[in-house]
Amino acid sequence: MRPIITLTTDFGLQDHYVSVMKAIMLRISPEVRFIDVSHDVPPQDVMAGAWVVRNAAMHFPPGTVHLVVVDPGVGTDRNPVVIRIKDQFFVGPDNGIFSLIADEFDYKAWKLTRDSFWEKSPSNTFHGRDIFSPVAAHLANGTPPEEMGETVDELVTYRWAVPISDKDGIQGWIIHIDRFGNLVSNISEDLIREAIGDSRFRIYVGNTILNRVEKAYGSVTEGEPVAYIGSSGNLEIAINKGNAREMLGVQKGAQISIFTQK
Amino acid sequence: MRPIITLTTDFGLQDHYVSVMKAIMLRISPEVRFIDVSHDVPPQDVMAGAWVVRNAAMHFPPGTVHLVVVDPGVGTDRNPVVIRIKDQFFVGPDNGIFSLIADEFDYKAWKLTRDSFWEKSPSNTFHGRDIFSPVAAHLANGTPPEEMGETVDELVTYRWAVPISDKDGIQGWIIHIDRFGNLVSNISEDLIREAIGDSRFRIYVGNTILNRVEKAYGSVTEGEPVAYIGSSGNLEIAINKGNAREMLGVQKGAQISIFTQK
Amino acid sequence: MRPIITLTTDFGLQDHYVSVMKAIMLRISPEVRFIDVSHDVPPQDVMAGAWVVRNAAMHFPPGTVHLVVVDPGVGTDRNPVVIRIKDQFFVGPDNGIFSLIADEFDYKAWKLTRDSFWEKSPSNTFHGRDIFSPVAAHLANGTPPEEMGETVDELVTYRWAVPISDKDGIQGWIIHIDRFGNLVSNISEDLIREAIGDSRFRIYVGNTILNRVEKAYGSVTEGEPVAYIGSSGNLEIAINKGNAREMLGVQKGAQISIFTQK
Repeated sequence: MRPIITLTTDFGLQDHYVSVMKAIMLRISPEVRFIDVSHDVPPQDVMAGAWVVRNAAMHFPPGTVHLVVVDPGVGTDRNPVVIRIKDQFFVGPDNGIFSLIADEFDYKAWKLTRDSFWEKSPSNTFHGRDIFSPVAAHLANGTPPEEMGETVDELVTYRWAVPISDKDGIQGWIIHIDRFGNLVSNISEDLIREAIGDSRFRIYVGNTILNRVEKAYGSVTEGEPVAYIGSSGNLEIAINKGNAREMLGVQKGAQISIFTQK
Repeated sequence: MRPIITLTTDFGLQDHYVSVMKAIMLRISPEVRFIDVSHDVPPQDVMAGAWVVRNAAMHFPPGTVHLVVVDPGVGTDRNPVVIRIKDQFFVGPDNGIFSLIADEFDYKAWKLTRDSFWEKSPSNTFHGRDIFSPVAAHLANGTPPEEMGETVDELVTYRWAVPISDKDGIQGWIIHIDRFGNLVSNISEDLIREAIGDSRFRIYVGNTILNRVEKAYGSVTEGEPVAYIGSSGNLEIAINKGNAREMLGVQKGAQISIFTQK
Repeated sequence: MRPIITLTTDFGLQDHYVSVMKAIMLRISPEVRFIDVSHDVPPQDVMAGAWVVRNAAMHFPPGTVHLVVVDPGVGTDRNPVVIRIKDQFFVGPDNGIFSLIADEFDYKAWKLTRDSFWEKSPSNTFHGRDIFSPVAAHLANGTPPEEMGETVDELVTYRWAVPISDKDGIQGWIIHIDRFGNLVSNISEDLIREAIGDSRFRIYVGNTILNRVEKAYGSVTEGEPVAYIGSSGNLEIAINKGNAREMLGVQKGAQISIFTQK
């Protein structure tokens, strides 16, 4: 089987950065295949990158290597690391980019220290090219992470605000807005089941009030808002055939509440 | 030969959606190769997607599978379908996305009913991941569409307004504007030959009048408008080294007319 | 080894243009692998394309074919060419797009004249599809450029303004601004070493004055401007965790000066 390396960065695709990383990897692992996850992570937004990684990575076949470079601290003392979760490898800076996936799964991590696996004379501004890409390619070739560095016990992790739930309901936040303008909350289906159960409820977001969780966008009339459990397992708000961000005027970070009705 | 799957969606590339579809397909068809046609179809714009599919698909090698997901009605009663045109397969929702290609070519279509070819417990909001991707991968593996569902006689199709031609000339519309701002009309070279022939003529679009169809952008002075037969076989209007949409102030849907001169 | 073709264009990814070129190449060279360098070169900006090519190409493995289509003069009398530099091939219009790479390396060039290697009846508006793609695929298959055309001695080349240096310092220009808003100058590390040496100096760009070249973005406080040698080997200006283009109000083409301090 030819190995697979996925790429998640904030480099965009107008510059040569992403293709240079691929060129480096092809020289080390000539049969590797690339899957671009996203290069449109907002510049230097580590948690937005963490969200993409958390949603994409574990769907890939065993042995996939995930190269993740959102790295505003490149050249400072943050560690370059390799992580193994189940049968997947992750390579990138230890700056919080692996926060969400490390929170959900057991992991084993190594700090990269053996510079024989890097490009010669690595720069201080492009470790994606000089450290992370060659390491990803060596992992794809089957080099075990044990040979590339030393075990670290704990990663740098950040946590998003956790939803608050009590007898009155749930208080959560919009953590992501996708290309369609759909509002993704941090309120999981499990939490709704637990905290709301079979009670009647109202969902408040921006100036909008909803009292049902529907099955599909099309369960409501065109142009109307709809609440549903999205493909990431969390409560989302959309407009059927419209853009909820624009039409409801809701931004990332906004509150979303579910109150049970007595 | 390792199979080829192309992808055309309105998902954009900032989110994880496209890569998750590829991950699902790689698990089912480990040797598959992906060609991204476009993920920048305007959100939920089925006919814009139909235009991309119509222009790209038939250039691909025999056996190519085209995964097409512009699916505002996901989770409602529109059918998931597979279509065969010559030696190419198409997978997606039966919502008009195949209108233009089905209008030009004979097709055979199947409604997808056998859920053993889908992901378990498909969601109502992401059939791209749960139904269309696994079906595309099984087609790429050589599973015949007959095993995946039941023949349907007719697809849902929409038609763009057809150009009107009479003894005075042709009335058409701008159906697409590309990245360069070039205005693509629905007036084909054949129709011009038939309706205008060797007569002198004038082309009217926005406030601009042209009286020749040129060979190349560079047939006119820099900054001047130029009419020509574009690579899709239709009349187009551009500005030599400029942007016709911006400089002529013409939008998608605008009228374009050719009047013969007596 | 399956051959590699890279693609650099100004076509964007919303239209079908790029995928049609790939389809044509797959029909001629069925095992070819594609690496997209960039399709977001600003429309018709030949020198911006030349910059991407110069920074990406030479990192790729021997035998890589680089398809480069930024071609505002398509259909006019500019030549279609193949270039060989070391073990890499380049295909595209002879319109200056190879200026920067041809300035740095010895090259051999051929004007494409044998239309048996092209699509039948090439259009005048899409040589990327009709000439450059099939030629790239034949090169990937091992056809030598000698069979496809005739040697040309010299390419059309443009030069960016060269930095001016004298006893007082260096006068250069911002030649590129990347996705992060980082300002890339045409002042190389070598020139700084030569013209400034160990003297104290001041860097002037926009309204900002800097007196050190740092190792990394993080060498200065967050939100502060920083000068450093970027990954392309030239002096760059960034804001640590910010956007220098926006925060310093500097555009492409702006002056950047280094004055030695007596």
